[in-house]
Amino acid sequence: MSYDQPSNEYFMQQALNEAKQAFLEGEVPIGAVLVKDGQLLVSDHNRKEQLGSATAHAEKLVIERANKLVGNWRLTGCQLFVTIEPCVMCCGAIIQSRLPELFYGAKDPKFGAVASLYHVLEDSRANHFVSVQGGLMADEAASLMQDFFRKLREN
Amino acid sequence: MSYDQPSNEYFMQQALNEAKQAFLEGEVPIGAVLVKDGQLLVSDHNRKEQLGSATAHAEKLVIERANKLVGNWRLTGCQLFVTIEPCVMCCGAIIQSRLPELFYGAKDPKFGAVASLYHVLEDSRANHFVSVQGGLMADEAASLMQDFFRKLREN
Repeated sequence: MSYDQPSNEYFMQQALNEAKQAFLEGEVPIGAVLVKDGQLLVSDHNRKEQLGSATAHAEKLVIERANKLVGNWRLTGCQLFVTIEPCVMCCGAIIQSRLPELFYGAKDPKFGAVASLYHVLEDSRANHFVSVQGGLMADEAASLMQDFFRKLREN
Repeated sequence: MSYDQPSNEYFMQQALNEAKQAFLEGEVPIGAVLVKDGQLLVSDHNRKEQLGSATAHAEKLVIERANKLVGNWRLTGCQLFVTIEPCVMCCGAIIQSRLPELFYGAKDPKFGAVASLYHVLEDSRANHFVSVQGGLMADEAASLMQDFFRKLREN
């Protein structure tokens, strides 16, 4: 008997579920999960409004909780899945935690720092290399954002 | 009788005191203070090793504590003083918290994102403008860093 490791799509679906939860809570709907050794370690979503914290982005929250769970600021052997392209702050947190691998869904043309405004994770001057795959289940992630901001404009 | 607001040098000296405390704790010696309406609201220093947290930079810690104290993710009317040029992550946190004013000491040619690697706070595409003054008491800030890394190499 053998266990197959869940697929990247499986983990991104968990991140999308977190994004949906953010939507229900009136937060910009972005979700993230952090995977270690093929297992989901922690998942969370954007909580900026409810925590009144400028830094409470989904990615930053899962990185910090993973640091606590692992007992180390280095997240060696971990993968981050996030529904929307990370901003400058979260790209910095990815580098700081030495995360080796990032999967994201839809691009963020206004704030994204992986492929839109900047290419922070591809900077040869950095002391850390991150493998990046964008566009994973991007349509679902983008739809949630569009629905959220349309609803916001209507109200 | 009138009270003069403390000078920028006064606040940077408090940040330097925090940096010295970091040094004593074996942390990379960087300190920060956050000022609101001319009064010191919160001060802290880099705690990456002791907290085992990749994101526990001085600037990020004072921004998050200020968010809690003010009860809002927007740090309107606040000034951040930090002994060393902020990295990408902390510049992102400055933008996210809408901090209007930054004073820093010495440049960080390897990781600085204000004037060295990037100019993140001067990006006309961002939705927020930050007034920046670098070089405030830079020699003291740089000396602390040099002493720290020299000691590290010797041990």
